[in-house]
Amino acid sequence: MASPSCGRAHDVYDATCPCRHMLDLLANKWSALALGALEDGPRRFGALRARLDGVSPKALTATLRRLEEHGLIDRTVYPAVPLHVEYSLTPLGRDACEPLALLRRWVVDNIGRFPPAVLEVPAAVR
Amino acid sequence: MASPSCGRAHDVYDATCPCRHMLDLLANKWSALALGALEDGPRRFGALRARLDGVSPKALTATLRRLEEHGLIDRTVYPAVPLHVEYSLTPLGRDACEPLALLRRWVVDNIGRFPPAVLEVPAAVR
Repeated sequence: MASPSCGRAHDVYDATCPCRHMLDLLANKWSALALGALEDGPRRFGALRARLDGVSPKALTATLRRLEEHGLIDRTVYPAVPLHVEYSLTPLGRDACEPLALLRRWVVDNIGRFPPAVLEVPAAVR
Repeated sequence: MASPSCGRAHDVYDATCPCRHMLDLLANKWSALALGALEDGPRRFGALRARLDGVSPKALTATLRRLEEHGLIDRTVYPAVPLHVEYSLTPLGRDACEPLALLRRWVVDNIGRFPPAVLEVPAAVR
């Protein structure tokens, strides 16, 4: 189905197709990890930050905002002091988890096939 | 199977696990598109650049170099004037195409479910 903003067949290889924009959002390490981290239920920012080992608060904030803007997650604010904010998957976000989970799974299953030299983790992130 | 550089169970959520590094490489728009563009056979740089609409030569060069370093594609130089260079999938790269194709496919199949406003393509890339 063509969206209103694209009268042609959808094609992620076309820079002007909305599909390219969505691929850019989903084919992204932090998006893939954040969506996966919400599969078991809503989480608060702090819990997501702890789960996404190595993410900066700035990168996580930007990732969550983009996912919310694109209808993949909901941000719910509960009245409390301090404010209690939870992030959860929308039905669309839950569906997007499927191909992303397969990609994460593929990496784990195939890590032994990569050239060992490139798998050395830089000392900076140890 | 644990790699020599990681004595623990592999986990893409762990910043120090080699899996995280590989997810970073594969969960990337240009990697996903470049590997997919090689599924039908070897291609030259110019053909890849034309296929990956909107990619800069610099970004494509960096992407191809990373994919080659990580054993996902081969770069073959044929003696000719000017040099004839072809890129092709390795068996590992061909296998990596499977989850990436599912992700590209998911985007195309579900594009109509995204909020229309966010799918407007900026004038800059039209």
